[in-house]
Amino acid sequence: MEIVRSGDQLAEAGKTARARGGRLAFVPTMGALHPGHLSLLALAREAAGPNGAVIASIFVNPTQFAPHEDFDAYPRPLERDEELLRSHDCDALFLPAQETIYPADFGSWIYPAGAARGLEGDLRPQFFRGVATVVSRLFALVKPDVAVFGEKDAQQLAVVRQLVRDLALPIEIVGGPIVREADGLAMSSRNVYLTPEERERAASLYAALSRAKTLFEQGERRSTVLRECVTGEIEPVPGIKLQYVQIVDPVTFQPIPRIRSEGVVALAAKLGKTRLIDNLRLGS
Amino acid sequence: MEIVRSGDQLAEAGKTARARGGRLAFVPTMGALHPGHLSLLALAREAAGPNGAVIASIFVNPTQFAPHEDFDAYPRPLERDEELLRSHDCDALFLPAQETIYPADFGSWIYPAGAARGLEGDLRPQFFRGVATVVSRLFALVKPDVAVFGEKDAQQLAVVRQLVRDLALPIEIVGGPIVREADGLAMSSRNVYLTPEERERAASLYAALSRAKTLFEQGERRSTVLRECVTGEIEPVPGIKLQYVQIVDPVTFQPIPRIRSEGVVALAAKLGKTRLIDNLRLGS
Repeated sequence: MEIVRSGDQLAEAGKTARARGGRLAFVPTMGALHPGHLSLLALAREAAGPNGAVIASIFVNPTQFAPHEDFDAYPRPLERDEELLRSHDCDALFLPAQETIYPADFGSWIYPAGAARGLEGDLRPQFFRGVATVVSRLFALVKPDVAVFGEKDAQQLAVVRQLVRDLALPIEIVGGPIVREADGLAMSSRNVYLTPEERERAASLYAALSRAKTLFEQGERRSTVLRECVTGEIEPVPGIKLQYVQIVDPVTFQPIPRIRSEGVVALAAKLGKTRLIDNLRLGS
Repeated sequence: MEIVRSGDQLAEAGKTARARGGRLAFVPTMGALHPGHLSLLALAREAAGPNGAVIASIFVNPTQFAPHEDFDAYPRPLERDEELLRSHDCDALFLPAQETIYPADFGSWIYPAGAARGLEGDLRPQFFRGVATVVSRLFALVKPDVAVFGEKDAQQLAVVRQLVRDLALPIEIVGGPIVREADGLAMSSRNVYLTPEERERAASLYAALSRAKTLFEQGERRSTVLRECVTGEIEPVPGIKLQYVQIVDPVTFQPIPRIRSEGVVALAAKLGKTRLIDNLRLGS
């Protein structure tokens, strides 16, 4: 696996993939890789085709963290990550320096509206500006044909799709299904923050989403009822503070009063100091 | 000259130009065309090459006007503009509807920093957000190989160059020299707002810039002295209110204390209700 740090090296990697008649597939990450990320790598390999190449990036993007958030504490097990990527058939790893992403003369910040409104956008006002801007920079540098993002960050995925549509970027966006622990907890680099007790309680988030899904499959379409089902499951669990539960449109990520064909139940909760998000697609 | 309104028609125009082995050169405008715009068309023709195509757009972009500004009053002589473009060898005119530029699901606003700070960015806080966003949309729709912008809006040109660099857009940006009236007034669609008396006084803006240039050519490099020269020329003229005079770096558009190799003297002034900007390059 090639370690790539500069734009010039990136151009070479892209040329090589395309010279072989394949596509360059890209998996942007903040590192601290878990099986969720590895499933994205597998999707990238599939999308790249037999002659294509897969490139991952690790960059803990400071601009998507608020001052009180966990930028400094965010896990950075770089050697382990490199080993994981190597053993999962990744062709290249892009490890940009801060000044490669944000050079001194950089100045084009993207403030997404639309799908970025509400939910995470309300609770983390800096988040989607940071995400849309870093993704636009990573795309500008890596120039992939296809990019793979996890569906756990479902609103982020909707914002990235919106960005690609608005700027007409020639990049196919692929969403990777959430990978879960045996008890249903969505895999996340932040799960390592949980105490054993919190870890046990965290399973109730998925249990609650699953209850809403069962209701939906029984014919329930009203968002208020589906939300109350989730809230009613989680609120009795001690030590979990729900931040939001919403039924949203899968594309616009705006709340809908009832589900016509498809919807997403999205939630955020705090367990002690750790903030977790999860979601479940209904009607796909 | 083809009139193009949709993205599909645009794709055809681009394909035709490239099928002939030429480039697609683009001149975005807000209409109310004057000889300054026509000089940009000539530069576009040159950049497109013998087999290329030239496309202009007319779109009075609401998002770069503040509520108190002249969006409604902005001149829209569409028939005359079409005739001018036709007689100046323009291959296609893109006339987008508002919902083509800003569709219902649009949400990727660009807030430029860097070159957008100061001067126009201070006096018109909405302006460069509107400009960068509409330019990114026009580029996404037109997909030109080269785009031509006038140097009268020198800070805008710096912001567009920054945008293209930051997003690594595969578009060459060409700046077109300012075209002036016989008495030196920079051509602008807003000059029609001037009363005969204001029109006469407006010539002092270029006269003042020229005095600074003479001083520069005599060896003066200190920004304070060059600024005072401009201010001293304009302030005695009745009915002109200077908004700023600055000596800035041509790329970053940030004020510099002295000119090493190149600088730009940029100014803005109000004559009655009309706001005019002008600038002169020193040391190019």
